[in-house]
Amino acid sequence: MDAIDAGSLQVISSLVIQVRWSDLDAFNHVNNAVYLRYLEEARVQWLESIDGVSLNDRIAPVLAASQVNYRRSIGWPNHVLVELLIEKIGNRSLTMGHRIVSSNDPAALYADGSVVMVWIDTETGNSVPLPDAVRIACAG
Amino acid sequence: MDAIDAGSLQVISSLVIQVRWSDLDAFNHVNNAVYLRYLEEARVQWLESIDGVSLNDRIAPVLAASQVNYRRSIGWPNHVLVELLIEKIGNRSLTMGHRIVSSNDPAALYADGSVVMVWIDTETGNSVPLPDAVRIACAG
Amino acid sequence: MDAIDAGSLQVISSLVIQVRWSDLDAFNHVNNAVYLRYLEEARVQWLESIDGVSLNDRIAPVLAASQVNYRRSIGWPNHVLVELLIEKIGNRSLTMGHRIVSSNDPAALYADGSVVMVWIDTETGNSVPLPDAVRIACAG
Amino acid sequence: MDAIDAGSLQVISSLVIQVRWSDLDAFNHVNNAVYLRYLEEARVQWLESIDGVSLNDRIAPVLAASQVNYRRSIGWPNHVLVELLIEKIGNRSLTMGHRIVSSNDPAALYADGSVVMVWIDTETGNSVPLPDAVRIACAG
Repeated sequence: MDAIDAGSLQVISSLVIQVRWSDLDAFNHVNNAVYLRYLEEARVQWLESIDGVSLNDRIAPVLAASQVNYRRSIGWPNHVLVELLIEKIGNRSLTMGHRIVSSNDPAALYADGSVVMVWIDTETGNSVPLPDAVRIACAG
Repeated sequence: MDAIDAGSLQVISSLVIQVRWSDLDAFNHVNNAVYLRYLEEARVQWLESIDGVSLNDRIAPVLAASQVNYRRSIGWPNHVLVELLIEKIGNRSLTMGHRIVSSNDPAALYADGSVVMVWIDTETGNSVPLPDAVRIACAG
Repeated sequence: MDAIDAGSLQVISSLVIQVRWSDLDAFNHVNNAVYLRYLEEARVQWLESIDGVSLNDRIAPVLAASQVNYRRSIGWPNHVLVELLIEKIGNRSLTMGHRIVSSNDPAALYADGSVVMVWIDTETGNSVPLPDAVRIACAG
Repeated sequence: MDAIDAGSLQVISSLVIQVRWSDLDAFNHVNNAVYLRYLEEARVQWLESIDGVSLNDRIAPVLAASQVNYRRSIGWPNHVLVELLIEKIGNRSLTMGHRIVSSNDPAALYADGSVVMVWIDTETGNSVPLPDAVRIACAG
């Protein structure tokens, strides 16, 4: 389902996430929607870490698409490691690959996939070119 | 991003969801992960509505993949309509299309995409053929 | 645990809430924290319904305290009814009673308790007198 | 609002929690219901740490009441420290005090309050005496 071999791309950012008991659903596994929370946390922390970028800027990213392959269920208690990769830098969009792996064993893959982010002017709602600071950060 | 023209498929189930203020994130829009909660609610209600199927059965579906295109932001207060479509019935998997639209104006599309569900034996963890009751329900 | 007999107070607002499967935790019941989400939804809808009040106003309420007695577990699928009552109108605070009951049988009590809300100037962070519009609405 | 001076009780367990961006609500602060998630995480980790106790036991605790005083808003990014205290050991219930403080400065108090837990036989739904293992753990 993933044309790009994420394994060949460089991890640009990674974050350890503490799994909460409340992340479990009635099936006693981390719920599928919570994976998106983990991925979001890694993305917003990466964005905030970029010099000259703040989540409160008028020019801000919105999610245009998300894709997740659920490879293994995640139990509690646990810590997971979220890895972000740059798949494609467009003029007004960024395709970011992601992997959720065990924090003890990065070879144990819980999920992978990608998101497409688009930058907009939050006052007009129109898409705009990626900020230079983001473009530079993506170059690693 | 969607090879199948979901517009040509038949809606097999639809559900009105009450947007909660707590579905909003700090950007004051329904968070991207919450879309998956809305889709899940429609799926589990559809599954429970099938004669001979219960979420507590030993043979149960798990999510193998999710894909969502975010078309428009969702505000509060609001109600949305989730529509489910059968895209592909495999031996051990089911690809289900989805759309989230305005409950007042079904032409106003908030999101679309699809999920892949796989049926497993929850005691062994092994994948199994789709239950007949599900197969029949998919035939509409 | 509740000195005031909430049963003798007038319900000032009530709201039916659609229980979501994702409100369940690993024990297969609506999680204790989600009760606060239900109560919040009823409060913010009540506030928004007051003429001259908006959640985006500079003068806005914050929660100073919450108290919930969990009387019965809530299952899914389900709808619950949240009832709000005015317990005490202070100069800068409002004590609001609450009950969560079955939407089919209002005598079936899931939870009760109260919250204390304080109005603040969101720019200075200082507490301020209750807006007149809120005071009038509380008089019912 | 708290008759017992929690400051004089011994902290029986403490846990650092990673605040997530998704814990924020549209007011850009950690939502009041999420405080209960933090408290729950500390409680379930404490329970799981007790020799001879598992969340999957037939004899399990349920929440009978929760009380939280919100002292300061919590921002992101952040880590908080949750502290649990034993306020009262009953025959079939346990009153547990809690504090949420800054992980950098334990004197900076975000919230305090208490919960009442009752042990039940999950098959009959009846309350039962506290398990000995819990009673021993409470004695510290």
